[in-house]
Amino acid sequence: MRATVIHAPFDIRIEEVPDAAVRNPTDAVVRVVQACVCGSDLWAYRGVAARQPGQRIGHEFLGVVEETGAEVSSVRRGDLVVAPFVWSDGTCDFCVEGLHTSCPHGGFWGEPGSDGGQGEAVRVPYADGTLVRLPAEAAGDDPLLTAILALSDVMSTGHHAALAAGVRPGATVAVVGDGAVGLCGVLAARRLGAEQIIALGRHTARTDIARRFGATDVVAERGEAAVAAVRELTKGQGAHAVLEAVGTEESMRTAISVARDGGAVGYVGVPHGGSAGVDIRQMFGRNVRLGGGVAPARAYIPELLADVLAGRIDPSPVFDRTVTLDRVPDGYRAMDERTALKVRIRP
Amino acid sequence: MRATVIHAPFDIRIEEVPDAAVRNPTDAVVRVVQACVCGSDLWAYRGVAARQPGQRIGHEFLGVVEETGAEVSSVRRGDLVVAPFVWSDGTCDFCVEGLHTSCPHGGFWGEPGSDGGQGEAVRVPYADGTLVRLPAEAAGDDPLLTAILALSDVMSTGHHAALAAGVRPGATVAVVGDGAVGLCGVLAARRLGAEQIIALGRHTARTDIARRFGATDVVAERGEAAVAAVRELTKGQGAHAVLEAVGTEESMRTAISVARDGGAVGYVGVPHGGSAGVDIRQMFGRNVRLGGGVAPARAYIPELLADVLAGRIDPSPVFDRTVTLDRVPDGYRAMDERTALKVRIRP
Repeated sequence: MRATVIHAPFDIRIEEVPDAAVRNPTDAVVRVVQACVCGSDLWAYRGVAARQPGQRIGHEFLGVVEETGAEVSSVRRGDLVVAPFVWSDGTCDFCVEGLHTSCPHGGFWGEPGSDGGQGEAVRVPYADGTLVRLPAEAAGDDPLLTAILALSDVMSTGHHAALAAGVRPGATVAVVGDGAVGLCGVLAARRLGAEQIIALGRHTARTDIARRFGATDVVAERGEAAVAAVRELTKGQGAHAVLEAVGTEESMRTAISVARDGGAVGYVGVPHGGSAGVDIRQMFGRNVRLGGGVAPARAYIPELLADVLAGRIDPSPVFDRTVTLDRVPDGYRAMDERTALKVRIRP
Repeated sequence: MRATVIHAPFDIRIEEVPDAAVRNPTDAVVRVVQACVCGSDLWAYRGVAARQPGQRIGHEFLGVVEETGAEVSSVRRGDLVVAPFVWSDGTCDFCVEGLHTSCPHGGFWGEPGSDGGQGEAVRVPYADGTLVRLPAEAAGDDPLLTAILALSDVMSTGHHAALAAGVRPGATVAVVGDGAVGLCGVLAARRLGAEQIIALGRHTARTDIARRFGATDVVAERGEAAVAAVRELTKGQGAHAVLEAVGTEESMRTAISVARDGGAVGYVGVPHGGSAGVDIRQMFGRNVRLGGGVAPARAYIPELLADVLAGRIDPSPVFDRTVTLDRVPDGYRAMDERTALKVRIRP
C-alpha cells in the first residue's frame, strides 16, 4: 500500500510500504477514507520534534474496517469508523476513567512499528478500545465525514482545552491561537455556553472562522498589547477561562496574563521550549490555574459526534484545502507556509 | 504600643511604635491576644524577600476589638475576632466570589503604612470585610484560641492546597513539605475524606504530627527517591492530589512527578525561584493540573471555625513554642534554625 513517510525535516514522501494487516487478535485494519495534516505534524516536518528517518506520519483518520482480529467484537468488516489520535486498550484504569491518553498499552499513530494515518490503510491496535463506529448513513456524505474527521484530534483537543479552562455557561473566554485547534476551542467554548469569546489572532481568514464559530471579539494584537486589549474587553478583569492552543513560551505567557484572578488556563498546544512562559509568581498571586495537556479524544468523540450528527456543531470549516495522497507533501508545504489552515487528504 | 519591626535580614526588634488607631470609618483596632510567626516570615528574615528597613511584620493574629470606625457594623468593642492574613473589603466582585486575596482594596499586614500582626494592637482596614467574630465563650480558652489562630493562615492555606489539588473522598494524597502548612494540608485532606495520605518529610517530630493529623504513610526520601517511594505506595500510579507546601523548584518538581496522570498539584508554598520546577512537558503528557496560590483565608475561616469549635479538627499541635512579645526575635531564630516548628506569641 502507499503511505506518507518522513525521511528528514522537510522531506515528506509518499511511498510503497507493507500492507496494513492484522498482527494481534485485538487488531483491526481500516481502509482510510479521509485523513488530514495536523499543526503538530509541522513540528516533525520542521525538525523541531525528532523523527527516525523512514517513520510514518499522520494521526487523524476515518475509514472502513477491512479486517478484524479474532478478539475484536465492537466493529466488523464494512463498518465506518473514526479513530482518535492515540490508540488505547479501553479497559485499563485510565481508559475507564476517560484518560485514554495515559493507557499503558496506548500509542501514537506513526510511532516506530505502527502505521500512520496519512496512508491507504492503518493497522489499529486494540480496535475495541480505540475505534468509534459511525452510522452507516454517513458513508458517502463527504461534508459530514469531514466534520467528523475533526473529532479525531482538533475538535476533541479544543474541547479538552475548554474543559481544562473550566468554561461554563456565562463565562468569559479568551482563546490564544488561531490555528485549527484554537478555532475548535472557540466552537467548544460556545458549545459549553460561554457568553463572551475573545479570539486572539491576526489572520483575517482565520478570525472570520472564529467569528463563525462563536467568537464575539477578535484581538489582533500580541504580547503586552494583547493583554491590555483583553482586559479592556473584560472590565479590566481578564477572562474566566483561557484556551492556550499554540505551545510556545510567549503564548503561555499571554494566556496566563489574560486570565482573570481565580481563572484557569487550559493548554493544549504541545509545549515547545521550556516552562519559562509559566509565570508561577503571577499564577500564585492571582490564583490562576493551569491544566490541560494531550486530549483524551477517545473519551470525547461519542458526545461530540452526537452533536455533529445532530447538526449542532460543524467544525469542518477548519479544512480549507483537500489533496490526494500523492499531493500530501504539497499539503505540508502549504501549511508550513500558512497558505493553508488545515489540509484534508482523500487517499 | 510595642510591635515587631524588621530592620534588615536577621535584624528583628521589638520597638515602641505609634498606637494603632482608627484612621478611616471602616477601620477597627484589635488588641492582640495571640499571634504567631509564619514560615513565610522567614523569607523576609533571611533577606530572600525584600523589606523596607523599619517595616512591621506578622500577619496572623486574633484578639479583642478595642475601637471601631463609624461605618463598622459587624463587630464592636469587646468582640473576640480572628483576622485572615490579608484584609479585604468584603464587597467587591472577588470578595463576593470568595477570592478575597484579589480584592482591589485588600492588603497584607505589615506592608508599608500598616500594622503587623506581631504587636500589641493592629489597625484593621475594612473591618467588616476582614474580621471574623468568635463566640464569646472562646475568650480565655487558651488551647481553643490557639487552634483558631491557625485559621488565620496555615490551616486555611493547607485547606486551599487540598481544594486546589482536588482532594475528594477516597482520594490518594501526597503532601510535599512538613512545615506547619504541609501538616495542616494533611489535616485538611483528611477532613475532605482522603483515604491514603502520604506525608513527605524527614523530621520525626513533624512527621509524628502528620500521622496524628491523618497521614497514613511517611516518605523520608527526597528527589527521585521520593518519587519512587510514592509510586511504590500507590500501585505505581502516583497520587490523585498533591499538596505542594514549600515553594522551591525542587519541591515543585517532586510534586508534579508524584502526581497521578490526570491528577492535580495544589501549590501554596510561596514560589521562590522561577518556574524551572514546573515540568510543563511532563504535565502535558500526563494531564497533570497545577492550581493554588495565595489562600483566600477569609473565605474559609467560617467553615473551618465551625469544625474547630465542634472539635472535629484541631490544628494547634503545629505550635510547639510560645514566646512573649519581647522574645519574638528568639522565636524567629528558633524557626530559622528549625528548633521550633511554629512559634506562638502572647503579647
